[in-house]
Amino acid sequence: MRPAPAFSEITTHRVRKANGEEVEDTLAVEEPLEIRLSTVENGKRVHRPISITMRTPGADHELAAGFLFTEGIVTGREQITDIRHCGKPAPGTELKNTVLVELAEGVGVELKRLERNFYTTSSCGVCGKSSIDALRTGAKKIEQNDHPAIASEILTRLPDLLRSSQSIFDSTGGLHASALFSADGVLDLVREDVGRHNALDKVIGAKFLAGNLPLSNSILLVSGRASFELVQKALMAGIPILAAVGAPSSLAVELADEFGMTLVGFVRDGGFNVYTGGQRIV
Amino acid sequence: MRPAPAFSEITTHRVRKANGEEVEDTLAVEEPLEIRLSTVENGKRVHRPISITMRTPGADHELAAGFLFTEGIVTGREQITDIRHCGKPAPGTELKNTVLVELAEGVGVELKRLERNFYTTSSCGVCGKSSIDALRTGAKKIEQNDHPAIASEILTRLPDLLRSSQSIFDSTGGLHASALFSADGVLDLVREDVGRHNALDKVIGAKFLAGNLPLSNSILLVSGRASFELVQKALMAGIPILAAVGAPSSLAVELADEFGMTLVGFVRDGGFNVYTGGQRIV
Repeated sequence: MRPAPAFSEITTHRVRKANGEEVEDTLAVEEPLEIRLSTVENGKRVHRPISITMRTPGADHELAAGFLFTEGIVTGREQITDIRHCGKPAPGTELKNTVLVELAEGVGVELKRLERNFYTTSSCGVCGKSSIDALRTGAKKIEQNDHPAIASEILTRLPDLLRSSQSIFDSTGGLHASALFSADGVLDLVREDVGRHNALDKVIGAKFLAGNLPLSNSILLVSGRASFELVQKALMAGIPILAAVGAPSSLAVELADEFGMTLVGFVRDGGFNVYTGGQRIV
Repeated sequence: MRPAPAFSEITTHRVRKANGEEVEDTLAVEEPLEIRLSTVENGKRVHRPISITMRTPGADHELAAGFLFTEGIVTGREQITDIRHCGKPAPGTELKNTVLVELAEGVGVELKRLERNFYTTSSCGVCGKSSIDALRTGAKKIEQNDHPAIASEILTRLPDLLRSSQSIFDSTGGLHASALFSADGVLDLVREDVGRHNALDKVIGAKFLAGNLPLSNSILLVSGRASFELVQKALMAGIPILAAVGAPSSLAVELADEFGMTLVGFVRDGGFNVYTGGQRIV
């Protein structure tokens, strides 16, 4: 039998110092998810596979919706009329690895945009252009006056608050997490995945499907590093403060700075580093 | 000015307990790399962009070659006649973000395979098929008799040996590393990147370009978690032992088991967990 979502029990041989023993262990489940779009073209429905990602099962609808929104393929809740699993389950399991997202009639999909997202490209590629220009998906600038402020003392406590709610992470040590908090440190939503981008897409997708975007009053905490793509996805959802337990990359800092986002890294051991937007930390 | 490879100096506001101060900080550089293939079709050269990845600059040729090899697009060194950067540098820098890989005349590229790699997919997608079947790229099984054995005591020391050679990681905390060791614990090669897959592609690409594949006598250590894709890439290079500082996923364990690879996780604090192929640990 293939594992059920979202973790899997196995027996492993654990070695500690010079001693070995057989112990029960738990693995984070990783399975592929294919996202397909259903659009109306010339009066009939066309299905088109647009992405395949390795993900932890359990929030596939949120993941698909979040992916489509953060990549700029859909812009509003009303553009999606249905999301459902399709096809047959993988052998020995009830797990389906394909999700079909049905777009409303009249909602067009720019095929050029799909290409940009999935393997590229304009005729000049990224040569001689700012890489940020080449890659940005249409995020809006965060306004200085339209944001929460968070106290340093609360910011430093967020990782512990996240960890205490991370059921899967605690048992496997193998998942990334994304979580939304209010400015006073109350946990709103947390999602986990073997992929860092997927965890964030699930969070944003849940809010998108509930009609709760933009997230102008939220603080986003990510369990790992802050990459360009995570900053970009957070900007698409209008998140003003991104805090990472790990380090940011150079391009993540550049993008956050240009779009007015507060980017904080190394939130651990009672401290943090502020890279951009320090006015939102009090 | 845009940052030079592979790290970037900035000033950040560091908060420790209740105190804040301005300090110099170093960021891992993240920039996009577009990989283009040049093939001969109907007697003339055709250039085709096939992938864009966010990478840390500095080993772009190795990264491009490793990517093409581990994805099954090229199979031998002689198929690549030239690799060069092309286009204009990004503004304010000497950094070029496009690499052109010239394939020898007569080397065909299966366009279907490119699709599989970059956004997908067959008509049935991943529905109703084993996900491993749908995603494998043609890795060969590791033979039981054709492998090194590594002592537990050496295995537990690999992360420290890696860390002492990781120049960028130490200063930024923001990079993944992949390293090859011999069975007696001698470091052969290490590469770093903001992306875990890129770090491994650089390692395999360096060996590919030097004509040193398969890596039948190497132990691979990765700094983070072991995913399906990392196991798959390592299998393509014929690596018999993969050790990860972090956790493996369910699909990583399944694939390693099926292909006879030794997969070890949580190599830290003097211990490790053996998931598959324990006969290679003595």
